[in-house]
This record gives sequence, structure tokens and C-alpha cells, in this order.
Amino acid sequence: MTVKVSIVGATGYTGAELVRILHSHPEVELTALTTRSYVDMPFDKIYPHLYKYNQLVCEEMNFPKLFENSEVIIIALPHGHAMPVALEAARLGKKIVDLGADFRLKDYRVYEKWYKVEHEARKLLDSAAYGLPEVNRDNIKKASLVANPGCYPTSAILALAPLLKHKLIDTGSIVIDSKSGVSGAGRGLALGSHFCEVNENFKAYNVAVHRHTPEIEQELSRIAGEPITVTFTPHLLPITRGILSTVYANLLDPPVAKDRIREAYLDYYKNEFFVRVLPDGTLPQTKWVSGANHCDIGLTLDSRTGRVIVTSAIDNLVKGASGQAVQNMNIICGLPEDMGLYGPGLYP
Amino acid sequence: MTVKVSIVGATGYTGAELVRILHSHPEVELTALTTRSYVDMPFDKIYPHLYKYNQLVCEEMNFPKLFENSEVIIIALPHGHAMPVALEAARLGKKIVDLGADFRLKDYRVYEKWYKVEHEARKLLDSAAYGLPEVNRDNIKKASLVANPGCYPTSAILALAPLLKHKLIDTGSIVIDSKSGVSGAGRGLALGSHFCEVNENFKAYNVAVHRHTPEIEQELSRIAGEPITVTFTPHLLPITRGILSTVYANLLDPPVAKDRIREAYLDYYKNEFFVRVLPDGTLPQTKWVSGANHCDIGLTLDSRTGRVIVTSAIDNLVKGASGQAVQNMNIICGLPEDMGLYGPGLYP
Amino acid sequence: MTVKVSIVGATGYTGAELVRILHSHPEVELTALTTRSYVDMPFDKIYPHLYKYNQLVCEEMNFPKLFENSEVIIIALPHGHAMPVALEAARLGKKIVDLGADFRLKDYRVYEKWYKVEHEARKLLDSAAYGLPEVNRDNIKKASLVANPGCYPTSAILALAPLLKHKLIDTGSIVIDSKSGVSGAGRGLALGSHFCEVNENFKAYNVAVHRHTPEIEQELSRIAGEPITVTFTPHLLPITRGILSTVYANLLDPPVAKDRIREAYLDYYKNEFFVRVLPDGTLPQTKWVSGANHCDIGLTLDSRTGRVIVTSAIDNLVKGASGQAVQNMNIICGLPEDMGLYGPGLYP
Amino acid sequence: MTVKVSIVGATGYTGAELVRILHSHPEVELTALTTRSYVDMPFDKIYPHLYKYNQLVCEEMNFPKLFENSEVIIIALPHGHAMPVALEAARLGKKIVDLGADFRLKDYRVYEKWYKVEHEARKLLDSAAYGLPEVNRDNIKKASLVANPGCYPTSAILALAPLLKHKLIDTGSIVIDSKSGVSGAGRGLALGSHFCEVNENFKAYNVAVHRHTPEIEQELSRIAGEPITVTFTPHLLPITRGILSTVYANLLDPPVAKDRIREAYLDYYKNEFFVRVLPDGTLPQTKWVSGANHCDIGLTLDSRTGRVIVTSAIDNLVKGASGQAVQNMNIICGLPEDMGLYGPGLYP
Repeated sequence: MTVKVSIVGATGYTGAELVRILHSHPEVELTALTTRSYVDMPFDKIYPHLYKYNQLVCEEMNFPKLFENSEVIIIALPHGHAMPVALEAARLGKKIVDLGADFRLKDYRVYEKWYKVEHEARKLLDSAAYGLPEVNRDNIKKASLVANPGCYPTSAILALAPLLKHKLIDTGSIVIDSKSGVSGAGRGLALGSHFCEVNENFKAYNVAVHRHTPEIEQELSRIAGEPITVTFTPHLLPITRGILSTVYANLLDPPVAKDRIREAYLDYYKNEFFVRVLPDGTLPQTKWVSGANHCDIGLTLDSRTGRVIVTSAIDNLVKGASGQAVQNMNIICGLPEDMGLYGPGLYP
Repeated sequence: MTVKVSIVGATGYTGAELVRILHSHPEVELTALTTRSYVDMPFDKIYPHLYKYNQLVCEEMNFPKLFENSEVIIIALPHGHAMPVALEAARLGKKIVDLGADFRLKDYRVYEKWYKVEHEARKLLDSAAYGLPEVNRDNIKKASLVANPGCYPTSAILALAPLLKHKLIDTGSIVIDSKSGVSGAGRGLALGSHFCEVNENFKAYNVAVHRHTPEIEQELSRIAGEPITVTFTPHLLPITRGILSTVYANLLDPPVAKDRIREAYLDYYKNEFFVRVLPDGTLPQTKWVSGANHCDIGLTLDSRTGRVIVTSAIDNLVKGASGQAVQNMNIICGLPEDMGLYGPGLYP
Repeated sequence: MTVKVSIVGATGYTGAELVRILHSHPEVELTALTTRSYVDMPFDKIYPHLYKYNQLVCEEMNFPKLFENSEVIIIALPHGHAMPVALEAARLGKKIVDLGADFRLKDYRVYEKWYKVEHEARKLLDSAAYGLPEVNRDNIKKASLVANPGCYPTSAILALAPLLKHKLIDTGSIVIDSKSGVSGAGRGLALGSHFCEVNENFKAYNVAVHRHTPEIEQELSRIAGEPITVTFTPHLLPITRGILSTVYANLLDPPVAKDRIREAYLDYYKNEFFVRVLPDGTLPQTKWVSGANHCDIGLTLDSRTGRVIVTSAIDNLVKGASGQAVQNMNIICGLPEDMGLYGPGLYP
Repeated sequence: MTVKVSIVGATGYTGAELVRILHSHPEVELTALTTRSYVDMPFDKIYPHLYKYNQLVCEEMNFPKLFENSEVIIIALPHGHAMPVALEAARLGKKIVDLGADFRLKDYRVYEKWYKVEHEARKLLDSAAYGLPEVNRDNIKKASLVANPGCYPTSAILALAPLLKHKLIDTGSIVIDSKSGVSGAGRGLALGSHFCEVNENFKAYNVAVHRHTPEIEQELSRIAGEPITVTFTPHLLPITRGILSTVYANLLDPPVAKDRIREAYLDYYKNEFFVRVLPDGTLPQTKWVSGANHCDIGLTLDSRTGRVIVTSAIDNLVKGASGQAVQNMNIICGLPEDMGLYGPGLYP
């Protein structure tokens, strides 16, 4: 059974990563790669690491033709641009995975407030499933439109879900201190991605106002069964790939034991291949998951202050974007969830 | 007036940085550089960036001779090794700046608990001043032994002092999430400093157990006038120089206004050249202070959660070590505090 | 058909890379990983990126037992240490791939001169095949001991073979200017691999005296059918993986046309999947082959000076070491040459 | 004696570096900083590392006013844009240092051929001095317009001048293999300067066609007294600052001794503070000169092939641009040549 897949907006970093991953996927045939900037250019001229692997030529987004030849449409466009594509694809009964933010926030008013864009597909929004399989697999299975999570939310939600599920923490005390590599900002040109501005440098940015905040809060609230507000601080690392989130929360009284916390994680993720709860004393490093679809989690109890400190690491382009998109595609197509995604990180 | 200075343990990174800084200091003559590993080797052979600048040859630590020719002894040895040197220097009436941890913690029992070393100079400890001039200048002026602060504590204490002084935060809510470049671990060989283990990588380490924790707590408690316990998490950045600390605290009720916070900082640091409270909306970047003795501070109010988020940046080898040592030396020698230390960071 | 493979010296970077690659190899079963430093330690504790993938525990090199359970022995030891292992393995009729230098130089006197070690296995040396499949496949097929090439030689020989084969250059004019990432120096601790000494830095080293020189000359001489001496200059790049060699040679009179050069390369490598002669105007970048077994080649003619400038890029740990070892193992085991090695680089 | 200096085009990296250096210059007063993109913006808002140091506000280039208040005009504009500014400044009798290429090539036809721009100031070109003090100081002293050299030419010419002056090499055999940090490409946005495209990567570019080639050839020819053609290959290093050039040439018959070569360099540079001929066995590293105005030179003789291999290292923004501009300004203003430029590199 071969699934025919088109990628809309294929020439950014997440698009290129989708192409790379899908070339190792035994049941996928790539049928079209669309672009605005590189029409008629061979994809391997834009991304020569794929020379000898990819023979497709980039094409304009051409709705009827595109949809005829594809069963699955993966959208890798900036937020605000996926809505019309998804509407058209849904109308024709295609399966859709959207890597952007347009279908992640269940309340369109929250979307419009944080993204300053009108939501043009509210009905479709209702049918979208939030695509974090480890916390929402049942809904994904039934969906034909999956909203692939943001990179920061993936790392933060997976770090916190077991604590909230087992009601181990004061839900008002959550602080998420995240650090991301530069590829999270995409291939577009910006001073903030200039090598000389990032290299041998480090900074916080968008402190307390980053758009991934409501997404994190939405999912944590759903898991906890109560409204949750968090402090979320993103930082820019001088690396290409990788996110490490350091998450702080106050344990509920009386202080829970360290073992109780570990058990909560081992239980929550007991059937999850892609989440690796590391052995006691081992803390995640971003490079261990470089190029891999894993989320590694490390647990520490600060008994002096009664806080739990969870660190989680992902490759923002894989588990934080394109790898997770393929994981979602596998789920909605009835394929084994790890197909094309099995394999450890590239270390060192 | 020329001050004769010897550096004990000159061949590590903080030693080399002392030599570099003191070459631009108009009132210092370097008289001796001691070493255990490189006896009889010209210093510029170990550190060729100083070729044509430094003509000294490294020598063994030779007490009487060393002290004869020096008025100030700067000690850049690993913790546990400064105590005998300081005892001897103090006996002979020399001025001392110690870059290590041996004289930072006022309670020797705390030192012995965290550093697993017996304190052999308890009496001398009583006379030592904690060398963070911006919070402790009056005591430094009177001291002849200055305990130069740790790199993390410098960044954390300067970030928090105004909030505590003005009693603006819940003192039980402090979380310090710090990120440091690799030079903080010194020039010694260790797998954790191997290029391939650090480059394109990021991790937390020593979570909740780092030895700088009691030092931070000691000084914050002194400023606040009450015992303070903090959660402190260090991380390793793939850069050579720089520390950025992101500090979280809950504001006291009723929530203070943003302006009130900024005023507290501007007031606290109004006469401090080396602390730069950045303009509203500007957040520090480590590279802006690379090679400079500044501590840059950025302020953000997370009004959704009632937290203040302070980011502070230093060069761990300068304001976090050798630059601050020269600042302290200037103070105890009656020289202008910024002598040899004036100048912006090397950017980009 | 599953091949049972043991790795002797598995805990260095080339060992870890072998383990990573072989986990994706459908016809290999890893039976033992030997070590001197980490006996009885689970391999995934030394290399946690392999957590959930590898369940082997490191063991001492135990000859009879090791060889009983393995058909192929891959040796990843420092030079001088592979000879006794290979002798024992050969005695028992095992197939051997040695990643070190002990069996690369056909003349043991050249080996002893450059490596300052006595050659203890001269007879076995005679039967060893130099393991660069693209220039020596026929001999490899017949061999049971393959000497895997050095990383620099792989990049240099592949860059020059077509020019020499087609007698297009003055063989006395060859200059090889190579630049390598730090992983080429291994995981051992050395000041030259310390992050702070390498990061944001660049240098040449071992100029005109590097041990890979005679290996390059041996193979180029064989291809050219005449003795060839080259100037070879290695440099250290602040990256983990990758070698780029820039090779200069004077074209023979009358100057050959640009097309003639390109044709020589396309012809020489027409059946080689792992060598990619890039399109005209495209020059290799090390990251395009990161994690992949490709050698990318770019061609430029400097018509003003009559020189040809060839740049070649490999991942030093893959095509320059462990990937090529698996390629050689595939050949001597009769498996498809690209098994376990298919796939593009991880970019960006 | 205070010199009033304006910088035209101050907001690029070389402009910012001029500002940084001139803040440590005891005899300079900065009077104006012009810009096209940041009119009316405080300079320390564009470059916050200068916060508390620089109070100037960027202004449009305003000819009469600008020239009234300045004795020296330093031009840091892209090539093609300096000609009209220099014409106007020269008409008013100002001293000029131009960091771009407009006045470097003595033959305007060579300029027009390589830069594809018409030369609008041919007369002024005749009066310009090529600003490499170590090889052309006498002419600079007499000039009022100095053409500051390119970064690559600075490193290449200083590496070769003694060999040519002493006629030690075959002038037809020169190969210059140069590697530069990214700041050499400026602060402008381009995919080639995007962090993710450069980091953990390495490539050659503009092979055999780089515009610095005729500049290198012009000066080498002048020194040698005969026309010289070279092969020049630039590469892009994943570092911010630094150029290392590895230069190859065949020694003339009979082979000269190693000592003879070293003597030629020591003699040629015996009075030059900024050129450091490193001790035998020591090879330059770019970081040793980071932030400093030195050019470090290392010498190796490849006796097997009869080639000399010279490596030279500079900071491309200092000795390769802004530092050398200040050195030239000092010369034409009659100030000590090292004023504001004394000091070693920032290491590590």
C-alpha cells in the first residue's frame, strides 16, 4: 500500500526535512512539491544534500491538479496561509497534516488575538485534531485534519503531562524555560538568524509574549482538567537543531517522593517508543536526538525547595515538526506509527 | 604609583585573562606568574596570543621570594588550594584577591558540606570580604582579603538585588535558570569540555546540586535580611564565553507596576558603571559583553502570571572572574575602580 | 542471511558510529562490543543517543569467545593495536575490516618510519586489501582482511583518481589543502580537542608531516602508474563532522578543456552511488554529506593559471571511517554494497 | 591634538568596529556617523554592546555639514559608492581612508572588469595610496586618500612579501588557499550568511573568480618587480572573525635552507609591531588575533617537495579592515601608528 503525498510549501527547512524523512519511508510516494519562490527549479538544486535522491521539480500550488494525484496533503506554510489550502483539500476529501498554527488553537478568538489574523475556516477548525500522539492519539486516529504541534509546545507538554495527569503539582507554579536552535526560525532571511548575530551568543526573546504560550496552556489545561496559565520564556541557542525545555513546578503538599514522580512518567509513557524517560541521574542533551523523532526526558527533584525540575529534549525539525508530521500521517493512514521514523540521533 | 602583582596559578583561563587585562592596566606591573604544570616555560608559549606582550617565564610557587616582590597576590587556583597560600600571604601583610571558592562562604560548615574539603583558615575567613562591589563595596574597601564571587552568583545576585532590597517579590518563589559557556569549566581536560560533546549540543547539569547555590543564597539572604532558598539550574552553552541567567520570581500582592520595578533597578545601580540596566524592551545578549566587565540586565513583567523575569548577561571570564578580580584589586589599592577595565564588548 | 559482527574497540567515535549504522543494517546482528575503559558498562550508558536501541554490555576483548560468535570482526583501535587482533582473527578464518593504519601501507618500512611502531604482521599485511571500493573494488572482493582508508586519504584520493587515471595533470604539482572536523581526532582527551581551543578558531597543523601523506601517495602512485609525491596540509575546523579537501594541480599542456575534465570524472564514477560529481557550478559543502556515506566532488578550472581545483567533501566518521567500513564489510560478505548506507545527509 | 573623524556608512560591521576601536583612541573625537538605513536612530540602539559608550545618533550623509566638522573621513560603504563621497571630500581638502575597493586597483580598467562598475574618479585614483603600511608606508605618509586593503589581500600579501622581495620562489607557482569567517560578508542579509547554512558546515566559494585576486596580484607584482598571476581560493569558515591563508610556492633551485626563509621574514618585518613572525614550530591560529590588529605568520618548509608553506592569520574586521584603517589614519595624521590599536587578541 503506497500513499501518495504532496507537500505544500516544500522549500523551507521543515519542507526539506519532510522530503528527507519520506525518502526513507517504505510506503510513501512523493508526488508534488509546491513553492512560491522556486517554481520550476529542481528540488535538489535548492537542497543539494538530496542530489541523486530527489528528482522532483518544484511547482506552483495548483489546486485541482495537486489534489488529484495525492491522498495526503502536508502543509508547511507560514501561519495564516494554510486555511485556504486546507479548506480546498478537505472539500475534496483529502487527508491533511498542517505544520503551522492555523488549526492548533481550538478557540478561534485565541488564535486571532495572538496571531493577529482572522480565522477563515472555523468550521474546519472544529474537526481538527491536535497532533501530539502521545497525549491525543485517539482523536488523531479519527481525524482527517491534524494540526501538528509547535516545536516548543511539543517539548513542554510532553515534559508536563504526567505531572498534571497524576495531579502531582501546584498548577499555578509552572515556569517553562526553553532554549531552541536557529532552524526553528526557518530559512527566511532575518538579522536574528544571521550567523554573526547568533554564533558565540545567547539571548532570551519574546519573553512572556511568545505565540506558543496559548497552545501550551490549551493542552495542559485539557490534560489537567482545569485552566492553567504558565510563564514561558524562549531563548535562542547557537545551534541549528534542538530544543531543550527546563520546566519548574512546585510539588503538592505533602512532598511526593522521587520514585512516585518517576513512576508517573514511566506509566504515562510505557507504550511510547518516541518518548524516552531517561534513567535516574541521566539528563537529556539535544544532540542525542539530533535527526531523530525522540523526546528525551530527565527528572530531578529539588528537595530543598520542593520543586520538580523536568528537562526535555527534541530535534525541533523532527519531533518538533516534520518527524511528528510523518508520525501523524502514519496514524491517519493506518500505517505503523514509527514507519520511516525508526532510528537514533546522529551523535556526535 | 605602580602596584606589583603576582598571579598564583596563572596558566588556567582565568589566569591568562588576568594577564591580558593587566597588560592594559596603566598602574600594574606583573612580577610573577606561578604554575604547577608549566614551570620554566615562557608564558607566551602557553598562550601565544600574548606573543610580544608578555616576557615572563612561569615559575613554581615560591613563597618567600614571590611575596617579597609583590604587593598584591591574585590567586587563581582550584578550590581547596587557596587556603595555605592566603594564610602565608596574609601573614606577610599582602593584599589578596582569591578567585576560588575558599573564602566566599562565611560559614565554614556550609563550605565543608558543599565542597567536601576541610576549611583550614577559619580565622582568615572571618576577615574576608565577598567581592561583589555593586552590593558590598564598603566592606571590600576595608578588607585585605577579597573573595572574588563565582561566575553564576555574579549574574544571579546582580539580577536579584534590587528586587530584594525593595522587597518587591515573594522570596520563596525564586527560580534561577542559568546558561554558561564552556570556559567556566576551565582549561583542564574532561569529556564534558570535548569539542564534539559540546558543539551543536545543549544540556542542563548538576541540577539542584551545584556548589554555587549556597553562595547565591548567602548573599541574597544578606541583601533581603531574611533566609532565602532558591532553585538554581546551570546549563552548558556551546559558546566559549558568557553567562545568561534567566531569573523568575512572583511579585508581591498587589502586583507592582512595571515602572516601579525599573525604577528599583535604575536606583540601585545609578552609580554603577559596570552594571547596565538596558532600556525597556531590550534584552541582554552574552556577546554584547564579551571581553568586557559589564553585567547587562533586562526586565520583563509577565502580567498574566504576576511574575517578573530578569535576564542578566556577563562574560564569565571577565565580570564573572578576572575582570571583577581587577575591579576588586583596584578598590583595595585605592585606584579608580574602572582602571584597565573600561571598554565595550567585542561584537560581533 | 544474517551476518554476526563484533566490534573491537567500540567506545570511540568510530565505534559508536559503527553501532549506529549497523542498527539500520537489515542483515547484521551485533554480537559483541569490546572496550578497555568501560568493561561491564551498558553501551547505551556511554552513548545515550542509542538508548532503547542497543542492549549490549561492553566486554573485555576475549579472543576465543569473541571469535566464536562472530563471522566478521571490525577493529576500531588506535594504530599499533590492531595487528595482534587481526593475526588471531585471521588464524581462525574470520573476515576482518580494520579502521586503523596498521594494514594500509603495503611497505612495512614506510609504516614503521611514519608511525614509529614495529610491524608485527608483515605476512598478513601482504594479503590486506586497501579498502577504497571506488578505486580498488576487485581486490577488496577477494580479500578477507580489508584496511579501511584514512579519512583524509579518502577525500584526497577520490578527488584525484580521475585526473591521474586520464593523465590530465602534471603529477609533480599536486597540493592537497584539507580541512577536518574535530571528531577525526577521536574522543580521547587532548588540549587540541578542548571546546574553547577549537571553537571560533582555525589553524593548520602537522603541516608537511602528517601520517596520512604516505597513504595518499601510495594510492595515487598506484593509480597513476608512477611515483607521486604530494604536499598535504591538514587544518582543524570548528565543526564536529566533515572533511573538505581542496586539491590543486597543473594541467598538462596543451590545456585541457573544462568539459574534458568533467567527462573524466563522470566516466570514472559512472557506476558509483556514493561518489556524487556535482553539477557544473555547484561546489560541495561538508554538511550536505553529514551522516551520509557520500563523497561529493566539485570541479573548477582556473584558466588564468592553468590549474584545476577539485574540492571534495565527506563525513569523516562515515565515508571517512565507519560508513566505508560497512561498505567494505558488505563487499566481502557478498551483500549489496549500499545496504544500511543508503540515505542523504542531515541538512541543515 | 584631537582629530575629528566622521564615518560614512557606520552601521555595517566594519563601521561598528571602527566605532569600537576609536572609543579607545586617545586622540580621536567621533563627530558623525552616517547611514542609509537607520537615520535618526541612536547608534547604541543598533549596536547595544556600545551602550553607555556612544551617544551619537545616526544621520543621513549630508555633505557640507559632515565635512565642516571633520578632518578625516572614513568611508565604509560597499564598492561603487565611495567614489562620489571621496571626490567631494577631496575637493574640500579632507583626509580620507576608504575601506572599500574603489581606490585599490591602480588601473581603472581592471577595476571595471572585475567589479562591473564604471570608475568615476580616475584622477583621484592616481593619487590614492594602497594602505598596507608594512609594504607601502612611505607612499601612505604622503597621501591624503588611502585605499584600505581587502581582508584576503592583507593576509596573502603579508604572507608572501618577504619571499618575493628576496626572490626565493618560483613566481608562477603561487597557490593561496584562504579561509574566512562570516563577518567578512558583512551584516547584509543573504542565505549564505544564515546561521543554519554556515554552522557545522564548510565550503569553498568563488573559486578562481574572487574579486580580491587582481588586488593580490597587483601588490605582489609591485613587490616582485614582475607580473605575477596566482590561484586564489576563498572558503567560508563557521566562525565570525578571522582569516587564515595557507600559501604554497615552489622554492627556487637550489633549494634554500629553512633558516634562510625565516631570516627573510625576520628581516622584512623587523620593525613591524603588528606583524608577528611566530617562533619556529608555532603555527598561527585565528583566535590568537581575535579583536587585535596583528597578522601572525608561521613558516614551514616541505623539503620532500621543495615547497614553502606559509600560514598567516588576521582578524578580518581589525587588521583586515577597521584596525588597519585606524593604522592608516594614524599615519596620515602624524600620530603613533599603534595608537588605539595596542593589545593582544581575546583568547579563548
